[in-house]
Amino acid sequence: MTKLRRVVLDVLKTHEPKLTDLALEICALEGIDGVNITVHEIDKSTESVKITVEGYDLDYDVIKDVIETMNGVIHSIDEVAAGTKIVDEVKTPQDR
Amino acid sequence: MTKLRRVVLDVLKTHEPKLTDLALEICALEGIDGVNITVHEIDKSTESVKITVEGYDLDYDVIKDVIETMNGVIHSIDEVAAGTKIVDEVKTPQDR
Amino acid sequence: MTKLRRVVLDVLKTHEPKLTDLALEICALEGIDGVNITVHEIDKSTESVKITVEGYDLDYDVIKDVIETMNGVIHSIDEVAAGTKIVDEVKTPQDR
Amino acid sequence: MTKLRRVVLDVLKTHEPKLTDLALEICALEGIDGVNITVHEIDKSTESVKITVEGYDLDYDVIKDVIETMNGVIHSIDEVAAGTKIVDEVKTPQDR
Amino acid sequence: MTKLRRVVLDVLKTHEPKLTDLALEICALEGIDGVNITVHEIDKSTESVKITVEGYDLDYDVIKDVIETMNGVIHSIDEVAAGTKIVDEVKTPQDR
Amino acid sequence: MTKLRRVVLDVLKTHEPKLTDLALEICALEGIDGVNITVHEIDKSTESVKITVEGYDLDYDVIKDVIETMNGVIHSIDEVAAGTKIVDEVKTPQDR
Amino acid sequence: MTKLRRVVLDVLKTHEPKLTDLALEICALEGIDGVNITVHEIDKSTESVKITVEGYDLDYDVIKDVIETMNGVIHSIDEVAAGTKIVDEVKTPQDR
Repeated sequence: MTKLRRVVLDVLKTHEPKLTDLALEICALEGIDGVNITVHEIDKSTESVKITVEGYDLDYDVIKDVIETMNGVIHSIDEVAAGTKIVDEVKTPQDR
Repeated sequence: MTKLRRVVLDVLKTHEPKLTDLALEICALEGIDGVNITVHEIDKSTESVKITVEGYDLDYDVIKDVIETMNGVIHSIDEVAAGTKIVDEVKTPQDR
Repeated sequence: MTKLRRVVLDVLKTHEPKLTDLALEICALEGIDGVNITVHEIDKSTESVKITVEGYDLDYDVIKDVIETMNGVIHSIDEVAAGTKIVDEVKTPQDR
Repeated sequence: MTKLRRVVLDVLKTHEPKLTDLALEICALEGIDGVNITVHEIDKSTESVKITVEGYDLDYDVIKDVIETMNGVIHSIDEVAAGTKIVDEVKTPQDR
Repeated sequence: MTKLRRVVLDVLKTHEPKLTDLALEICALEGIDGVNITVHEIDKSTESVKITVEGYDLDYDVIKDVIETMNGVIHSIDEVAAGTKIVDEVKTPQDR
Repeated sequence: MTKLRRVVLDVLKTHEPKLTDLALEICALEGIDGVNITVHEIDKSTESVKITVEGYDLDYDVIKDVIETMNGVIHSIDEVAAGTKIVDEVKTPQDR
Repeated sequence: MTKLRRVVLDVLKTHEPKLTDLALEICALEGIDGVNITVHEIDKSTESVKITVEGYDLDYDVIKDVIETMNGVIHSIDEVAAGTKIVDEVKTPQDR
């Protein structure tokens, strides 16, 4: 199954709309099982968050649209997983 | 299922009412499976606590009302999860 | 189920009665599945202990009574959990 | 069930009798499922060990008798657990 | 079963094509269960990523071809696993 | 069941016989489920190894005989477990 | 069952043949369930790798032959396990 299963996004957003609304909006999309949004830094008018989306058939461009519609900018894609099973990153001696 | 499943809140509260009463009050709400309250700092008249609420259909505004009724102020939402499954934050090399 | 499921208490007690007797006394109460007492510091006449009580319907005031009857003083409630499931604290970037 | 389920003891003992004999002697007592003895420091004529005893109905005084009979002195009880389930210590922000 | 089950690759790639497209392209190959791509460093025109591929019969040369076709260069193979079960690296005192 | 279930031994041995032969010789004894030998330090003519033996009825003296027959000397017994279940050491605040 | 179940080897090899070929060659041997090869250091003409082999009846001499045939030299055996179950090394206070 050549489907996208997980994307981890580094996103800068304004304080509004709230995290709860952004999470509900993303997980209303097709092919999504769940979304986690974690706050990493809070500034005066913006916050830096990490968004982890998991599902059985993610569409990156649609997710990106929703985030931008809700005043967010994707700084980078930090991790992706695709396939019939979600493979996690394997730690190697180079990472230690 | 586009339901809110977890919120993690950074809250400042007065010492009264007690943590046990606040926890019982929150988990009496609709759609909640459980709540955890952990103390992070204690000052003379206030304490800084982290409140983790998990359930099958959380309503952020109602949770916020209960906390404020019981002398608490939400400083920030630190994490939210939504969907048919609760997705945890994935650690990436950027976090290490 | 709006029941108290876990309380974690920071307690100062005299050396007597022994930890084993205090643990047995607490878990003889209604609604308790188990209790753990861990020693954190030992002084000449007192010891600082952490008491973790888990169950299906804890009554904080009754637990407090038992601890005080056995020469203990509760310095603080460090964590509580309530609901149909015991929710653990979720670590967020703010804790690291 | 108001029974003692785990005790963790800080014990100073002479090198003889051997750890294997002490462990077998303790777990021959009533109500015990298993015992672990770990060496923490070795001196010329003594060794400092941690003894963890788990079971369904421990009797502290009888365990203490066996240890003293085998040339051991209990310096402190470091942890106890009682109840129908063995509850582990919960880490809180105060421990970090 | 003398089949390749996991390869972990240190890859330098241009920003385009995106991680999501590279992941989908790799997991469209024969014998693959899933692929994970994690970003380790981002430079002006390139990014350093770790690619973990798991499956029941991997073909390294075909994976390499796909990566190179999509503007990636394999710097090193960091880990491989083969056999009827995927064996993880065992940590030894030499690694600590 | 007052049987010995685990012993962890700090052993100094000559390079010959090899670890593989020593492991096979120990696990050929009665009452043993498995043995692990890990190298901690290698010197010119000797190596310092940790031997973990687990089973349903270990006989320390017989294990000691095998080790000595194969040019090993037991420096210390670091841990033992006995009983119907193998109890692991419980970490307490004193260990941190 | 007095069979060898795991060997962990510290090996120096030339860059060719590739890790994938060495892994496939080892796991084609009798009695092997899987093999993991992890790179620890890369030099100009050689690389230092850790090879973990697990199975139900390993033959160390045959594994050694395959490694040497493929331009590898075993520097040391770092860990072995034998028996009906694979026992892992137990951490003791001496290791911390």
